[in-house]
Amino acid sequence: MLDEKTEALRDKVRHFIDTVAIPLEQPALEKDVAALDVACGQLRAQARAAGIYGPQLPREWGGLGLNWSECAVIFEEAGRGMLGPLALNCAPPDQPNMLTLLHLGTEAQKQAYLGPLTRGEKRACFAMTEPAPGAGSDPNMLQTQATRDKNGWRVNGHKKFISGGIAADFAIFPARTDEGVTLFIVPTNTPGYRVTRDIATVTGYQIGGHAEILLENCHIPDDAVLGEIGMGMKHIQLRLEPARLSHCMRFIGRARRALEIAQDYVQTRDAFGSRLSDLQQIQAMIADSHIDLHASRLMVRECATLMDRAVSVKNESAMTKIFVSEAVGRVADRCVQMMGALGVSDDTVVSCIWREARPFRIYDGANELHRAFLAKRILR
Amino acid sequence: MLDEKTEALRDKVRHFIDTVAIPLEQPALEKDVAALDVACGQLRAQARAAGIYGPQLPREWGGLGLNWSECAVIFEEAGRGMLGPLALNCAPPDQPNMLTLLHLGTEAQKQAYLGPLTRGEKRACFAMTEPAPGAGSDPNMLQTQATRDKNGWRVNGHKKFISGGIAADFAIFPARTDEGVTLFIVPTNTPGYRVTRDIATVTGYQIGGHAEILLENCHIPDDAVLGEIGMGMKHIQLRLEPARLSHCMRFIGRARRALEIAQDYVQTRDAFGSRLSDLQQIQAMIADSHIDLHASRLMVRECATLMDRAVSVKNESAMTKIFVSEAVGRVADRCVQMMGALGVSDDTVVSCIWREARPFRIYDGANELHRAFLAKRILR
Amino acid sequence: MLDEKTEALRDKVRHFIDTVAIPLEQPALEKDVAALDVACGQLRAQARAAGIYGPQLPREWGGLGLNWSECAVIFEEAGRGMLGPLALNCAPPDQPNMLTLLHLGTEAQKQAYLGPLTRGEKRACFAMTEPAPGAGSDPNMLQTQATRDKNGWRVNGHKKFISGGIAADFAIFPARTDEGVTLFIVPTNTPGYRVTRDIATVTGYQIGGHAEILLENCHIPDDAVLGEIGMGMKHIQLRLEPARLSHCMRFIGRARRALEIAQDYVQTRDAFGSRLSDLQQIQAMIADSHIDLHASRLMVRECATLMDRAVSVKNESAMTKIFVSEAVGRVADRCVQMMGALGVSDDTVVSCIWREARPFRIYDGANELHRAFLAKRILR
Amino acid sequence: MLDEKTEALRDKVRHFIDTVAIPLEQPALEKDVAALDVACGQLRAQARAAGIYGPQLPREWGGLGLNWSECAVIFEEAGRGMLGPLALNCAPPDQPNMLTLLHLGTEAQKQAYLGPLTRGEKRACFAMTEPAPGAGSDPNMLQTQATRDKNGWRVNGHKKFISGGIAADFAIFPARTDEGVTLFIVPTNTPGYRVTRDIATVTGYQIGGHAEILLENCHIPDDAVLGEIGMGMKHIQLRLEPARLSHCMRFIGRARRALEIAQDYVQTRDAFGSRLSDLQQIQAMIADSHIDLHASRLMVRECATLMDRAVSVKNESAMTKIFVSEAVGRVADRCVQMMGALGVSDDTVVSCIWREARPFRIYDGANELHRAFLAKRILR
Repeated sequence: MLDEKTEALRDKVRHFIDTVAIPLEQPALEKDVAALDVACGQLRAQARAAGIYGPQLPREWGGLGLNWSECAVIFEEAGRGMLGPLALNCAPPDQPNMLTLLHLGTEAQKQAYLGPLTRGEKRACFAMTEPAPGAGSDPNMLQTQATRDKNGWRVNGHKKFISGGIAADFAIFPARTDEGVTLFIVPTNTPGYRVTRDIATVTGYQIGGHAEILLENCHIPDDAVLGEIGMGMKHIQLRLEPARLSHCMRFIGRARRALEIAQDYVQTRDAFGSRLSDLQQIQAMIADSHIDLHASRLMVRECATLMDRAVSVKNESAMTKIFVSEAVGRVADRCVQMMGALGVSDDTVVSCIWREARPFRIYDGANELHRAFLAKRILR
Repeated sequence: MLDEKTEALRDKVRHFIDTVAIPLEQPALEKDVAALDVACGQLRAQARAAGIYGPQLPREWGGLGLNWSECAVIFEEAGRGMLGPLALNCAPPDQPNMLTLLHLGTEAQKQAYLGPLTRGEKRACFAMTEPAPGAGSDPNMLQTQATRDKNGWRVNGHKKFISGGIAADFAIFPARTDEGVTLFIVPTNTPGYRVTRDIATVTGYQIGGHAEILLENCHIPDDAVLGEIGMGMKHIQLRLEPARLSHCMRFIGRARRALEIAQDYVQTRDAFGSRLSDLQQIQAMIADSHIDLHASRLMVRECATLMDRAVSVKNESAMTKIFVSEAVGRVADRCVQMMGALGVSDDTVVSCIWREARPFRIYDGANELHRAFLAKRILR
Repeated sequence: MLDEKTEALRDKVRHFIDTVAIPLEQPALEKDVAALDVACGQLRAQARAAGIYGPQLPREWGGLGLNWSECAVIFEEAGRGMLGPLALNCAPPDQPNMLTLLHLGTEAQKQAYLGPLTRGEKRACFAMTEPAPGAGSDPNMLQTQATRDKNGWRVNGHKKFISGGIAADFAIFPARTDEGVTLFIVPTNTPGYRVTRDIATVTGYQIGGHAEILLENCHIPDDAVLGEIGMGMKHIQLRLEPARLSHCMRFIGRARRALEIAQDYVQTRDAFGSRLSDLQQIQAMIADSHIDLHASRLMVRECATLMDRAVSVKNESAMTKIFVSEAVGRVADRCVQMMGALGVSDDTVVSCIWREARPFRIYDGANELHRAFLAKRILR
Repeated sequence: MLDEKTEALRDKVRHFIDTVAIPLEQPALEKDVAALDVACGQLRAQARAAGIYGPQLPREWGGLGLNWSECAVIFEEAGRGMLGPLALNCAPPDQPNMLTLLHLGTEAQKQAYLGPLTRGEKRACFAMTEPAPGAGSDPNMLQTQATRDKNGWRVNGHKKFISGGIAADFAIFPARTDEGVTLFIVPTNTPGYRVTRDIATVTGYQIGGHAEILLENCHIPDDAVLGEIGMGMKHIQLRLEPARLSHCMRFIGRARRALEIAQDYVQTRDAFGSRLSDLQQIQAMIADSHIDLHASRLMVRECATLMDRAVSVKNESAMTKIFVSEAVGRVADRCVQMMGALGVSDDTVVSCIWREARPFRIYDGANELHRAFLAKRILR
């Protein structure tokens, strides 16, 4: 029951994904950042030409200015393509990075950082996670320290598993200051900021991998503060909720893609005298996958509607993140199973989607944490 | 995000359930039909006085004339009380029976049958299920036969597990005729119509139990035909979809009730030095239960919205029935577990809700069937 | 790979259950304790005549003197009959009660209490659970108090959910004393010992229901102490481990019975043009049920073998209790589902087995507790 | 309850894995076959020196001559090391290849093929799977054809997902002949035998990848027949059962390794003021993982015991394959979750074990197939 405008846009994005983005997919791009970069640039030009670039970006920043309810539809469509969110410039971590800059950036920061991001000229990362005993699922364990220095701050810290950190031109990160946690934004070529390695993970198409980063006596100027000094924790919370939901939107598209491929497969493959699609165990997997996606979509849409009305979605977004991250994992797992040996191979993107879905139960707060906090809020 | 009118009505129903209906609950009513009947009559009078009687009934039949979206809210509230749906006259099987009569009844049938039902003066049953090899989940296996006779029909058949059949004043049932399956409506005191026994089941508060019925050379007049001759299968399908969804609405209320009780319990009970509610395994059960109910509610609401727009919900209602019936079962099961020995006793209604939830995965079409047919329709 | 002797005994028990015990089953016995008592007496006489009475009892007490490995086989066979364990006098709570008396009783206590139990002349209960804030899953919360009195003790306390408590001739219970927790054994007609009610629960064939008991200034003599003063907790632990495993053994038989009935059903019932047993969703339920029972049996057998060698099975018995209680629940649930409406009715024992299996995840320590303690022991 | 000899051997293997094999592990070996080959050669020399080489091989072929029950213990220990089974020469596909040759090979074939395999001088593959519409889970769909030719046979066919096929020196494969399916063994440098590519998959340490192979007018001599002409299907069945169980044994070791790593992690990492290991959701994951491994081990041991007595394990091995493949998947998944971001990275082998476990639900016959056939055999 979409309005006509959104429906038309959705169809346009779907057509773009099917005819432009999907044909460029190839497993090699998972490992070859340079080639991925080239593909990405090419796709963005075409997306811009097609009028579908930056769905979530304000019109003054070159985007389509969609609200969350509309984004839910379009991000799902984009997510169907392994390169779709990159093509439309609504991929993480830059989609939430741009949102953070829109909310917190000064005019100068917007010109310096947000502009290049919206135009796809630069990339950023959000460097929060630290190795034990630092900040993991619990941001309160933050160890990175920023101390006042003449004309700015001196930062020391150690960051890990920073998505996109290898290719980032600048980084947003929280650090402890006397006034509390504060967010900073700095170019990655700032002296004392050092990417020490790219951590291999199970995941797929990610420009800029997962970086380990050292901040060693890194001097940064006063105007590197993003938002208010000492308000970092509040700023982070503000970022995480929509970031989490945007992830859900894109992942629903990913899982739907896997399901489309698996459905095609089972309708052409036979075993023991039956078309696979005529076997009830296969039918049950298909039914359950559609149920999972339907419920996921409705939960995401509910959050989006509330966010568009500026209603708090603390509990709803926690429930949605838990459910959707597990639902898309189940769907991807079933698709692998339906496709047999083909499903675990790179001959289709199903295996990649299955791998990509796994960290989602961990990222944006492990689901166990969300469960515990959700229950505590309900019982309070 | 309810409109004010529905919100006000919901609050009124909630107040009624908490202050009027719940105080009358007692395990003995499960077995004592006469006492249940008395309680039911008393509650209906109070519900009528409170202006909440017959939420789904048209105003001309003494009801509130709510649409499906509004019913979703009110049926859930009513379902929180074990006697709530009976009190509001929106309990099965009479709620779908009244709907069937509204859709298919002639003016005379409405006066004779629908009127007494809407006023709570009589009860009906819908007698479809038959013992093997007759109609079970598959209505096409129908064996009951109606053959033309002078001034009417002669019916022979055997029905089983007919909810409410013990206390019904009249029965609606399908039978094979030369023209195809046809629906009939007859008083239960028609000669040749015989209730042979009440089948004990795991379920709880059900006026009229689960009857086994024999139709032996039962002569019924021409005007006993309900709807069109030979169109019984289509009529049945029309009935089942909203019946299924109404079940979902009420059961969400049931499960919510169990969860409220379990939440109260874990916040007062200690074990091994902790309040139960401080233990993560308990918190996870509470979180998962809220997720289950949230998703259930959204799926039901989506179907209701579509039905209000007269859009077909064939796939959506199948997905909803499967998901909700399993979700409320999980919620009830977790509530039992959280409450320990108290949970399996009749000292709270939690054990009754747990039992009641079980058949819902079977009634209105076993979930396995819905899964297979859903997948086939999707793949077609 | 049973030895010939055990195999022969198993076959004899199987024959007895099929031809003697099962024919006496009827749903009415669930509620009618007197009739159940009569049936039980009759069955015990026949079991004694058949040479299968008291499989676990020492020969000097009229039993067969089986070790745990042999009991595992025989208890499963007995458990297939709803009246089987009662018939063989290996039903709870008397089976563990007799074991407790064998381990802890003085010669006089054995004559007074154990003898009548072994001969089936009397019944006992084990009264540990208390209403909140007393002992539930956590025995350390015990509130019942025994204070020294002339020639004995004065006991005050409140017990709840005491299986068999309604029909018990004497009771074993723990109480706090100055020296620590102490076990006592007293006739239930002792002044100050009062059964206040029978708590209705979801469970089935249980002579003596689930009692609530008040101990009000109950004077008991010195020789009512069972075991050592102050060693009650250790005595309880000693009791619980084999009690738990005996439950597992019997429940495997229960679940197997339900599966036999469901398998027979699906091989005769059709739907949508297929025999139910030809549908893959049914086949998957049958396969998973056999896997559940196979794994359950092996875990029980492993514990039994270790216990026969007097090796500690602390972790193994916890793992077994968790797995088996959930596995038999799954099996019973699938059997209900496979049988449709018949499955939730009392027309077969499947619905009763489904209900009986539910409390097993709670009794003998809720599974959540076992999980937490098991993990702590492993990590220690 | 192992005998002393097996216990001593197990301890020796455990020591070897911990001190020799694990230190050589590195993610790079997953992709670098040449380096893996070098590591493998080095490890085998050390394993031979340590007296633990070829546990399953007959003494006359340089092995330890263990029976299946002993192999169950030793394969699990070997499986703990990512390079362990390769080091001991009990890794697939050569472990079942050697078994097949022992059973079916002529004396000449044993000298030519089995000898080099047992000494680790050559490698083989078993080429059964074909692209659609050929043999997948259903071997009856075999399309590869061998027709009589002068002095031998002419083979045409297409094979896919052949584990180890890239590095194999010879291949065993089934083909249709006039007499029925026949097994052949040929050097991979036979003209007309062509490896067309290495198919990337989710799996890890596998020398020789997963090959796609074309057989184009491939002429092979008469003595390439392995076993009896026309008896290929029977020969394949004979191979698959122990191959499946050997997989189970090694995978239990894999999952145990992941669990050891996760347990170490949760005992050192804090979040929200608690050590992770003190949180009940973590404890539940640990408990469930031990239960899964315990049940898996008992099911494997039961099959091994029966196989050592030459008793058919058709149903037991199907149940074991289904249960163990899913259990190790669950364990690996929980370990990933417990370790958070570290769990999805290659910084520990946990992510690799998680990936490796996935195909096991597909390989050796998809679990859905095993379920359907198991149920059919039970119901027959």
